[in-house]
Amino acid sequence: MAADDSFAGVIAPIVTPFNEDLAPDPVRFVEHAKWALAQGCTALVPFGTTGEANSLAGAERRALLERLVADGVDPRHLLPGTGTCSLTETVELIRHALALGCRGVLTLPPFYYKAVSDEGLFRYFDALIDRVADERLHIFLYHIPPVAEVGFSLDLVGRLKQSFPGVVVGIKDSSGDWENTEGLLTRYPDFATFAGSEVFLLRTLRAGGMGCITATGNINPGAIRALYESRSGPDAETRQAAITATRETIQRTPMIPSLKYVIAHYRKDPGWRRMRPPFLDLPEERGRALIASLEGEHGFTFTGV
Amino acid sequence: MAADDSFAGVIAPIVTPFNEDLAPDPVRFVEHAKWALAQGCTALVPFGTTGEANSLAGAERRALLERLVADGVDPRHLLPGTGTCSLTETVELIRHALALGCRGVLTLPPFYYKAVSDEGLFRYFDALIDRVADERLHIFLYHIPPVAEVGFSLDLVGRLKQSFPGVVVGIKDSSGDWENTEGLLTRYPDFATFAGSEVFLLRTLRAGGMGCITATGNINPGAIRALYESRSGPDAETRQAAITATRETIQRTPMIPSLKYVIAHYRKDPGWRRMRPPFLDLPEERGRALIASLEGEHGFTFTGV
Repeated sequence: MAADDSFAGVIAPIVTPFNEDLAPDPVRFVEHAKWALAQGCTALVPFGTTGEANSLAGAERRALLERLVADGVDPRHLLPGTGTCSLTETVELIRHALALGCRGVLTLPPFYYKAVSDEGLFRYFDALIDRVADERLHIFLYHIPPVAEVGFSLDLVGRLKQSFPGVVVGIKDSSGDWENTEGLLTRYPDFATFAGSEVFLLRTLRAGGMGCITATGNINPGAIRALYESRSGPDAETRQAAITATRETIQRTPMIPSLKYVIAHYRKDPGWRRMRPPFLDLPEERGRALIASLEGEHGFTFTGV
Repeated sequence: MAADDSFAGVIAPIVTPFNEDLAPDPVRFVEHAKWALAQGCTALVPFGTTGEANSLAGAERRALLERLVADGVDPRHLLPGTGTCSLTETVELIRHALALGCRGVLTLPPFYYKAVSDEGLFRYFDALIDRVADERLHIFLYHIPPVAEVGFSLDLVGRLKQSFPGVVVGIKDSSGDWENTEGLLTRYPDFATFAGSEVFLLRTLRAGGMGCITATGNINPGAIRALYESRSGPDAETRQAAITATRETIQRTPMIPSLKYVIAHYRKDPGWRRMRPPFLDLPEERGRALIASLEGEHGFTFTGV
């Protein structure tokens, strides 16, 4: 069986803007989603870690997803994050996404309880798939141990893939550990593996992976997509080095506040900087230094606004 | 100002029973709650870590709490866990608990995002209290870094207590680190500090603490309460040693499945053993060994069924 390539390419886990009262702002959200698609993203993940998804209530996620679709974003280009700590909430989010026409979901393991067994996580996904009971379901596993702590071992990925063929179809590997991504690509060539950062994009593609789902897709989608398209070209390594350098600059300040600062700066819309606590907005002086680094060191441009 | 002693004593974070389809079972839940109060608990925490709260949807928590109160459990003896990752869901759970007549809530910090700042956590609680906007609100902080990873530093506790007097009134310290509990008791004598385990009960009481909120209150409330009552008596140390030994026996197997196994055993009701994934039921042979240890080493009895 060939790997599911429905979402092959460059995917941005889009940031979630907030109004002054910290309610999600659907207007800025839709505008940003359309911008990201127009600038090079092949698809979007609403409600990933970068989207502060786990700072949102389920009802807030559902309302934003409905708004994206109602305002004209093709649901086939959406891979919503549906991970929560609980089986029942996750079932509800997945059913809602499928009903709206999404072709897949990105799902965290339940992440409150630590040191749980692979067997326990397997049973969680077994129960989840059984309860969703929809043949349209395509699950992409969301492996992000630096944040969720709980992750998917290579063996667990293999067991889920084998037990639910055509349902558990891929993974976003945000371990930050190339050895893990390489292990996935080597052991499961028929599985849709995405790097969790564009730093690994070329290596992932060369090893048979599908692309990347990367936070930086919120501000630099054009350059990342250009590498995806010219991955076999003579300038691939140069392009990889350039997007890696931009990523490294962004990572010097807290990632999500920095992305929002950059968007706010180029859109001339300070409201874009707002974070929901426990995150803090990026301080003005750090934001200015970030913009100076991006433009000075990397000739960064933010197009399409 | 004296510390808030509304909940002084021995509190069980009650386990949540599930039906065969893994839906919460309100009948067993209410029965167990009444049993725990009758056997010595001074109050109950529905929806703590032990109650698999973070494996439940918000709607499931609310329905169970309504059922407890409807079936005659005095809401003044309930300190529901209302912690989630998101401000908005937590506000909803707190408002619901207050509307039902609960006098306090036990609240985790938002726990998905790691390495967040004290300032970010402060703003989360500031926003929470502002949005709940109810003068009946009494927040007990739930400090459990071994599970939630995100916790409350001593400085943050002080800042919250000082900024929200009469609102942020206490803490459950489940760090398992006596030095931290002692630090709380020493620095904040006017704060209601509960040990997260009966192992520290006598030390906590002697240092001015309020008591303990302990998982083992689900099976051994009588003996723990007896120590609480006779804390100044000549046999206090002996009682402490006995309940500590029982706790240590329970901790040799996974805590929550073990508690459910013990209840299932003495109630002759195997359905009580069910865990929601990612947890697994305690295997039969480990459960039998646990019962043998409890009865053989500690003369353990489970009364009132």
